[in-house]
Formats: sequence, structure tokens, C-alpha cells
Amino acid sequence: MKKVAVIMGSDSDLPVVEKAITTLREYDVPAEVHVYSAHRTPEQAREFALQARKNGFGAIICAAGKAAHLAGAFAANTTLPVIGIPVKSSTLDGMDALLSTVQMPAGIPVATVAIDGAANAALLAIEILSVSDDALAERLQAARAAATEAVLAKDAAVVAKFNS
Amino acid sequence: MKKVAVIMGSDSDLPVVEKAITTLREYDVPAEVHVYSAHRTPEQAREFALQARKNGFGAIICAAGKAAHLAGAFAANTTLPVIGIPVKSSTLDGMDALLSTVQMPAGIPVATVAIDGAANAALLAIEILSVSDDALAERLQAARAAATEAVLAKDAAVVAKFNS
Amino acid sequence: MKKVAVIMGSDSDLPVVEKAITTLREYDVPAEVHVYSAHRTPEQAREFALQARKNGFGAIICAAGKAAHLAGAFAANTTLPVIGIPVKSSTLDGMDALLSTVQMPAGIPVATVAIDGAANAALLAIEILSVSDDALAERLQAARAAATEAVLAKDAAVVAKFNS
Amino acid sequence: MKKVAVIMGSDSDLPVVEKAITTLREYDVPAEVHVYSAHRTPEQAREFALQARKNGFGAIICAAGKAAHLAGAFAANTTLPVIGIPVKSSTLDGMDALLSTVQMPAGIPVATVAIDGAANAALLAIEILSVSDDALAERLQAARAAATEAVLAKDAAVVAKFNS
Amino acid sequence: MKKVAVIMGSDSDLPVVEKAITTLREYDVPAEVHVYSAHRTPEQAREFALQARKNGFGAIICAAGKAAHLAGAFAANTTLPVIGIPVKSSTLDGMDALLSTVQMPAGIPVATVAIDGAANAALLAIEILSVSDDALAERLQAARAAATEAVLAKDAAVVAKFNS
Amino acid sequence: MKKVAVIMGSDSDLPVVEKAITTLREYDVPAEVHVYSAHRTPEQAREFALQARKNGFGAIICAAGKAAHLAGAFAANTTLPVIGIPVKSSTLDGMDALLSTVQMPAGIPVATVAIDGAANAALLAIEILSVSDDALAERLQAARAAATEAVLAKDAAVVAKFNS
Amino acid sequence: MKKVAVIMGSDSDLPVVEKAITTLREYDVPAEVHVYSAHRTPEQAREFALQARKNGFGAIICAAGKAAHLAGAFAANTTLPVIGIPVKSSTLDGMDALLSTVQMPAGIPVATVAIDGAANAALLAIEILSVSDDALAERLQAARAAATEAVLAKDAAVVAKFNS
Amino acid sequence: MKKVAVIMGSDSDLPVVEKAITTLREYDVPAEVHVYSAHRTPEQAREFALQARKNGFGAIICAAGKAAHLAGAFAANTTLPVIGIPVKSSTLDGMDALLSTVQMPAGIPVATVAIDGAANAALLAIEILSVSDDALAERLQAARAAATEAVLAKDAAVVAKFNS
Repeated sequence: MKKVAVIMGSDSDLPVVEKAITTLREYDVPAEVHVYSAHRTPEQAREFALQARKNGFGAIICAAGKAAHLAGAFAANTTLPVIGIPVKSSTLDGMDALLSTVQMPAGIPVATVAIDGAANAALLAIEILSVSDDALAERLQAARAAATEAVLAKDAAVVAKFNS
Repeated sequence: MKKVAVIMGSDSDLPVVEKAITTLREYDVPAEVHVYSAHRTPEQAREFALQARKNGFGAIICAAGKAAHLAGAFAANTTLPVIGIPVKSSTLDGMDALLSTVQMPAGIPVATVAIDGAANAALLAIEILSVSDDALAERLQAARAAATEAVLAKDAAVVAKFNS
Repeated sequence: MKKVAVIMGSDSDLPVVEKAITTLREYDVPAEVHVYSAHRTPEQAREFALQARKNGFGAIICAAGKAAHLAGAFAANTTLPVIGIPVKSSTLDGMDALLSTVQMPAGIPVATVAIDGAANAALLAIEILSVSDDALAERLQAARAAATEAVLAKDAAVVAKFNS
Repeated sequence: MKKVAVIMGSDSDLPVVEKAITTLREYDVPAEVHVYSAHRTPEQAREFALQARKNGFGAIICAAGKAAHLAGAFAANTTLPVIGIPVKSSTLDGMDALLSTVQMPAGIPVATVAIDGAANAALLAIEILSVSDDALAERLQAARAAATEAVLAKDAAVVAKFNS
Repeated sequence: MKKVAVIMGSDSDLPVVEKAITTLREYDVPAEVHVYSAHRTPEQAREFALQARKNGFGAIICAAGKAAHLAGAFAANTTLPVIGIPVKSSTLDGMDALLSTVQMPAGIPVATVAIDGAANAALLAIEILSVSDDALAERLQAARAAATEAVLAKDAAVVAKFNS
Repeated sequence: MKKVAVIMGSDSDLPVVEKAITTLREYDVPAEVHVYSAHRTPEQAREFALQARKNGFGAIICAAGKAAHLAGAFAANTTLPVIGIPVKSSTLDGMDALLSTVQMPAGIPVATVAIDGAANAALLAIEILSVSDDALAERLQAARAAATEAVLAKDAAVVAKFNS
Repeated sequence: MKKVAVIMGSDSDLPVVEKAITTLREYDVPAEVHVYSAHRTPEQAREFALQARKNGFGAIICAAGKAAHLAGAFAANTTLPVIGIPVKSSTLDGMDALLSTVQMPAGIPVATVAIDGAANAALLAIEILSVSDDALAERLQAARAAATEAVLAKDAAVVAKFNS
Repeated sequence: MKKVAVIMGSDSDLPVVEKAITTLREYDVPAEVHVYSAHRTPEQAREFALQARKNGFGAIICAAGKAAHLAGAFAANTTLPVIGIPVKSSTLDGMDALLSTVQMPAGIPVATVAIDGAANAALLAIEILSVSDDALAERLQAARAAATEAVLAKDAAVVAKFNS
């Protein structure tokens, strides 16, 4: 199976990013985690991106805050799907990271998820792998069914509390 | 090859969306185009999404403006990657569509591109297909090289104009 | 009397939504509470909306955060008045939910109240029922008079503290 | 049948508001149109609001731009449902009017629709009347079916153009 | 001397507003404090505004949050200078109150100060009274000189700490 | 009678500012107009502000765009009421000028009006002068009555068009 | 004298950027102009930045729109001062480029000027060179004096028009 | 070596600004720290700016919140590079200070760094001095290399934790 890279711009992003790692593990998707900064380790970031496809990756998740260039820097050096997680920092409530990640120029897409949306970044990577992996598709479908059941259980609890 | 669906919420979105269609054609990726509204044709949208994987689609592009629920409505009914294009409308400069598309709750990801970013939506879909399609990966890589050349040509023109 | 449905997208919205429930009870308006997600239980949400009018509902209140599609998903499947409560979540201070709820396309209105404005959502539902229910109209009017008295009592306290 | 009042804060809002008037007429709902300003004719606005219920109105639509207080001023003086249309003016793209209309304090709800969303304001008023008027409910349902057909016709046109 | 009215929309605004009261007292400017709501006590607010000039007021300070209509409601009923304090509430960081207060339509000005800027609201009122009161002008000037001294004392402390 | 100064940061602001000048003239309030820049003529701006009170001014109106420091620079050098007009420029729709003008620190108030709100700036200045000028107060009141009549005439026209 | 590099992310930025080039020429500061994209020519951008100091540059101006990573990408590869011009594009009025340029993480500064502020970017570069170049400092000072004169001339024109 | 001035508008900004002071000391760049307010000590601010170049300064760092005019006030009175730090205050998350600092009119540049970006302000000042100081340039380069190593060490820790 293709691997998914999970890159964070700073290890201070780990509390947000960890949810992506655990989600990938729930689906038994091999993940490789790194701290690479677009600005402080541009060479390593670039090298990783350039080699990612031939190193067996199928998607790259990049999490960064503020002027979040990380996902764009990876996308500039690979044609693999790059998924951007805008991370909320101490000012502007994540809007800076969101716009820096999503407003990419034509030619270099970044698949952006919600601010701090690490679980969805992992699920999106898994969905991408599932396009050519029926077993993974089935597991995603099963998780959706389980999520539906979970909501219905909560509905039942609320119904019991308020509607009786 | 898997197909890519291109869905717009209204045919008034066509001038934006057309760039996605032409980009897919440039890569010889089979595309199927539809006008489906999350609110006015919820049944048809749902039905299309539920059947998309088994009907041979590998990714679904959804373009919508204002309170842009279209991509989310598709994502709720498929585990294929869903790509959202927020479309700028007459007020708020596309910010409403951006937030409505990207801020999805955990469990249901939408891969969001820039406001009016139709070309990138198509390229992201092609990148997704390229994960298991080496020929497509090579074509993407070639296009990147051509884009680099195009920028360098423009640089040469600017250099000639200003630096001589 | 017609019933009012109170739907929340997640049971984590309950602390906000509870004020709607208590307000409806103050007016003896029958309420039915549910947890339905536009994205995780789309079928149940749709089914509820489609049957709501004939099941005796007169208004549907929907509370959701982030890319808040819940009210729109209900509005797409009923012609009853749908009232949207945008719920503030951990980023963007509720602006994402507000725009996702209020910026509906022509044809499918959602009556949007303030961010976290659950009490007003319930009062709006009661006002809607009061259009054909004079007793309810009188109770609303009495509550307004009481609210005026409450402000005047606070004014008297402030006057006593500062103006003597 | 109850009447619907359509109030605009300035006759310069008429190009936006006119769509509400035509929509009400399409449904044969009696409408009464006025120009009242919360700030320049506060007495007339207040008087109209105070008498609206006994004068046979079932809902009041208020359209205003900038620091849009009109809907709130009406809501302060009636317990009928008040629907607010935030009108975009020459700066801030309607965000000022949206926040001034929707962020009402607890106790005085305003049912806010999209910026410049006059058609939806009218439809919301009709939905409110339909709660106790089955014929109106049927007409709303028929219009929804027609809207679905219209989207499907546009889909067919797009399918013919792009998918053949 | 003319009096200054200090009106708050809710007694929950008192922690913000109190700074205006203490500032007025520092200058021995007579102040009258009230809790009046534009929406819950519209009659009392209107009556106060209509009589304010002949009751000896020279300026009216209004503090309110969210869809802050209070200053506008007073300004609609008096030609005295009305000063608006936008109060930050639990969402949107005061932006809603700021836009609702400052974006008044032509004809009805509100002199808006910073979000939660109660001290400046009082100072502005005192400046207004000082236009025809030389003693007050001198006291304002003296306070400016004292403020300059206070900053210079802080500068001296910082200089001692860092520049030696 | 005290004079009103009308200062603009650039003569490109004149199309906005002119409305302030004509409004002052309608009330026969003596106005003195200047182009002074907080950044390009800081000395002249400061000198004017320092002498304004003794030169017979009762209020100073300052109009500026972008990082609009003009009103603050004047307010720093006078204890007269300073009124700020945030001017919309080619980006950000006036939000930059609004925040730069209104968010003044404690001690130095600026009375801010709406973006491009030149007429209201003049009216606010006139209201300030009216605090000690009964004839001016009467003229303001008469203008309000005329404005009410103007709205009612527009209402009559709309009533004739739509309600007959 | 050190040179100043003027880099634009796309030749469509030239109408904005040209003002920087002409400003540098007015001061006889040698400029070298290039079109380099952070995403389409990452190698060339990086190479230029890495060599810039030893190639005789004293400052690098980077202009880019949308998710404007260009200045950051240069700053990551040089310790020369990098000046960022956020360029307004078709959506969001330049706010995306502003936040993407200015919100840089600690360690890698970008000196950001106003949206579309190309003249100021050039002036800032010249100011930087002037720190060790007294002749340049004198020319800057002379230009300031000329700018003051220009404003005073405009003031005289306005005075003649309005104050006589 | 030229000195760097570090000016803060209020000593309450010291917790943010202190990082600039310590960064300058790490590089043995002489710093002079002051509290000067654009509005409360305009004379002292102006005097300092006017004399800064001849007093041996090479750059001026100005930190201020809300309607942050400090950097602009300095820039108006010197042709040295002025660096602005927008400081986040109790409302609007620093957006007011950012726009007030960065959106300077043509002719008077301010080099703006991130909200609360004091370390980068100091680094930018050092980069400016390094243009004519090779030893400083080498120290900056060494710090970059150290920063790269620090990120790689964090990467190694994350790799050890997650990838083994």
C-alpha cells in the first residue's frame, strides 16, 4: 500500500497533528511523520517532496500555522496530492493559515481541510488511496455506517432526555 | 481510467467551472459534467454521490457559491475524494463560499481549493488519479516542467525589458 | 398546537441549544428534540424534514457549527419555516457557521438568528406559531412587557447607585 | 389571508426589495409596501409595528443597509415574525448590514436572510403563512418541484453540451 | 454646566461602562446613568432622547453590544451629539457592535469610539462641553500634560532597566 | 460662531470630503478647509491642531484612507473634539481606515463616523456647536423634520406604486 | 552601490510592480527585475536568493498575490532584508496576500508593505541602503521635503477654492 | 556599529517587545529602548525620530496596538527604515494594529512584521545592518544553520516516536 506522509512545520503543531496519525493507524495505512519547516529546512522539505512519489507515498499531509507556506512548498515539488491543514495560532484564529494554504495559484493545487482539521486530512488521504483500493473503500464505508450509528445513539439519548 | 465528475450548483457557475472541464480534457481524463443543486435537487445529488464509486468515478469536483453546501452534500454520500471549489458571488468576495466549503466537521472531508480555483480542482483530481497511474504522473510532471519554462520565458522578457 | 422541532448537528451543541428547549417549554409549545447530522445521518435528516409538516410541526430549529449545512439540508426538504442557529466553535468565532447558515441561495430560505442565539430561535418559532394563535400572541406580548419591567428595574438599581 | 408588510429603509433599496414584492404577488399573498426609516421616521415605523398584528399582518419584511437597525426597530414593537434583509451598500460588501441585522440580543429575534436576499425573505414570509394555510403549503411545494425541474433542465443542457 | 447621559443597553455592560462614569466624575461633569434598551424599552429610550436637550444634557453616551442599535436609536430622537461605545460580547470580538454603531446612514451621526472605549467616550463628551467652557478646556489640557508626564516616567523606568 | 476645520489627508479625498463642506455651508457654519498629511506635513498638521482652539475652532474633521492616522495625529495635539472620516481606498473596502481611525487608545478620543460618511461628520460638528447655540439646535431640528417629510413623500410614492 | 532585486511571482503583477522599478530608478539605485514563482520555478528562486548577497544585492523586493509565498521563499534562503508586496487579486481584496506575506514565523522576517504598495517597497529598500550611504540619505530627505511642498501646494489650491 | 531603537507605545507592550531586546543582545547589536506614545508624547516621539539618524541609529522598531500609529509617526519624521510590530490587544485579535501599521500611504514606508512578531522585528533590523556589515551577515547565517539543526533534531525526535 502507498504510504502517507504527515509533515508538520513545527513540533508545536503536534497536538493538532496527532489526530491525523492516529486516524491513519486506525485504517492500517502506513504513515511517516516529519517535522520540516518551509523556511528553516527548505532543502529537506524540497528533497522529501521531490522523492516522495518514488519513495512510495500516495499523499502528503502538511500542517502549518500563520503564513502557512508548508503545503505550498511541498506541492511545488511534487505532483502527488498535497493536503494542507491550516493550524490556528495565537492571533487571527487560524484565518491567516487558512488563506495562506487554500489560495494557491493556478497550477499548484493544495487540498485544504478545515482549520485544525487533522482527522479530516487523514481521512482525505485514505479516500485518495481508496480510489484504487477496494478494501480501503469498504473500511471507509463501514466507518461512515458506524458514525451514523453513533449519531443515532446520541439522538436516542437526547430523545430519551427531552421528548418523553 | 476512472472518471472525474464535475458538478456545479447552478449553470451560472459555468464560466468559472469551464476551466476545470478543459483542464481535464487536456489530460484526456474522462469527465462527466452536471448541474445539481444541494437544495433544489437534493435527491439527484444524493443518488449521484451514492453511485459514484461503482459508476467508475475516482473524484468528484463540486463548485458552488454563497452558503456552498454542494461539496459537503456529496461528501456525506460517498467516500470518494470530493473537491470543493468555492465560487465568488455578488457579495462577500467568496469568503462565504470558502468557509462553507472548507470548515467541514470531522469525519466528512472536502478537499477545498482557492476561490474560483477551477483549474486547480481539476489538477487535484488528476493528481489523485495519478497515485495509481504512472502515465498520468508523467504527464503532470511534464506540465510542471512546461510551466517552469513558461515562467522562465516571461522572466527573460522582463529581463530584456528592464535589466539591459 | 403545532410542534416545534429542535435539531442539533452534534450533541456537543446541547449547551447552546438547551436554551431553545427551555424557552419553548416556558410557552408550553410542544417541542421534539433530535441529534441529526447533515453529513453523518443525511437520510434521517431528510426523512424527518420530508415528513415534518404532516407530522404536525410548524417550525424546525437547526443548530450547527463550522460549515453549518444542517439548516440548509432541512430547508431543502421542507417548505416549513426553518430557523438556523449558527454555533460558535473553536475557530473563527462563529463567522463560518453564520455565513454557512445565512447565505442561502434564492428559493430555499433559512431564518437565521444570532450566533449561539438559541433563545431567539425559540422565540421566533413561537412568533411564527402566534400568527394563527391569539393566545400565544398574548403570551409573547406579556413577556415583552415583563422584559420591559425587568430592564426598568435594572435601570432603577443603576439610578440608585449612580445618580443619587 | 394575513398580509405581509415589505418595509425598506430608503427608496434606494427598491431595486433589491422589488424581488420580494414580485414573489409575494406570484403567490397571491397580499403585500403592503412602505418606505420607513428607523432613524428618520422612527414614529411612523413604531406606529406601524405596534398596529401590524391587529391590522392583519402575518409577517414584516425589513430591508436596510449599513448599520441596518430597521428590522430590529420593528421587532422591538411587535411580536409578529420580523424578517430582515441586509442590503449591500457602497462599502464592506454587506457585512455591516448582515451583522447589524442578525446579531440581535436575546428576547427580540429577527429572522435574517442572505445579503440582498429579497426573494428568500418573501418565501420565508409565505412559509410562515403556510403553517396554517394548506393551500399555500401546496403552492410552495409545487414551486419546489418546478425548481427541481428547472435545475434538471439545465443539467440536461449541460450534459448535452459536455458529456456527449 | 450641561449634563452627560450615560446609557447602557444592559446592566451586563456596566463593567465596561463604569470607566466612563468615573472619568466624568474626575472632571466634575454631572452624569446621569441609565439602563435603557433600544429593543426592550424603546419607549423610555425615545422619551429620554426627545427630552434630553431641554433637560440640560449636552451629550449622550450609549454603550451596547452585538447588533448595537442603542446609539442609533437615541440619535434618531435628538440632535445632541450621541457617542457610541461598541461593547465586545461573546462572539465576533466586538466587530458586530462596531459596525452596527459606526455605519450610520447620512443624516443621523453617531460619534463612535473604540470597542469597549468607555474612557474615551467620556473624554469626548467632556471635549464637546469644553467647546464653550474654557475651564473644562484647561482641565483637559492639564490632563494631557499629566498623561505625557506619566508616559515619560514609564520611559524613564524602561530606560533605566534596559539602556544603562 | 466657532469655526469647523475640514482637513483631508490628500486632495484625492476631496470627492468624499466635499459633502462635509457643503453641509456646513447649508447651516452657515464657517468652515476652513485644508490638505494636511499626518505623514508628509506632520509639522503643519501639528501646528494647526495646537492653535485650533485659540484660533476659534470648535471641532476638527479629518478624512483619510488606508492606515488613517490623520484624525489621531490631530487629536494628539488638541483637546477639541476631533471627528474622523475613514475613507475607502482601492483595497479592503475602507476597513483599514475604519480600524485605524476608531480604535484609538484611552486618553485620545476620535469621534468616528461611517466609512466615507462626510455628511455625518459635518452634522456631528454642527451638533457639537449646537450644544451652546440654540439657533443651531433649532435648525438641526428643522432639518430632521424635513428629512422625515422627505421619507414620507417617498413612502407615499411607493404606496401609490405598489399598494393601490 | 548595492543592487536591489525586484521579483514578481507572475508577469501579471507587472502593472503593480512597475512603480517599484521607476522609484528605484529615480534614486539611481541599480535594480534587477525578475519573474520567479515560488511554486513554478522554486529552483531558480532558491538559487537567486542563495547567491543574492554575494552577487551584490542589498535588498530583495518580492511581489505576489493570493497565497503569496514568494517573499517567504526568498527569506528562507537569504539573510538579506526581504520586502514583501502583497498584491490584490480577483478575490478577497488582497487580504489573502497580506496575511500570507506578513504572518511569518519567528526566525524568518519579511518586511511587509501595504497591499499593492510597490512605491513604498522601493523606498524601504532605498532607506535600507541609506543606512550606510549618506548621499542616498540626503536624497531621501530631499524627496520628503519635496513631498511636503507638494502637499502644501495642494493645500494652497484647496484654500483658494474653499476658504476665500 | 549603528544602534537600533526599540520604541513601544505603552509599557504594557513590554512582554511582547522584550523578545526584540533579547534578540538584539544575542547579536551584540546596541539597542536603545523607549516608551513613547504617538498620541501622548508626540513631541518626544517626533524629536527622537528627527535626530535618530545623526544619533547613530540604523533602524527603529516601533510596537503598538489598536489604532497603531506609532511606526507611522516615526516614519513621518525620519528616512531611516522603520519596522512596525502590530501588537494584539483585547479586541479584534491584532487585526486593527496590523492594518494601522501596514497600510501606509505612498511615500512613507513602514516595514511591518507579524502580529506580536518582536523577534522578527529585531532580526529584520539586524539584517538591515548586515547589508554593510559582513560579520553580522555571517552571524545571521550561522543562526539560520543552527535553526535548521534545531528543526532537524525535532524531526529526529518525532521520527523516533512515530516512524519506528
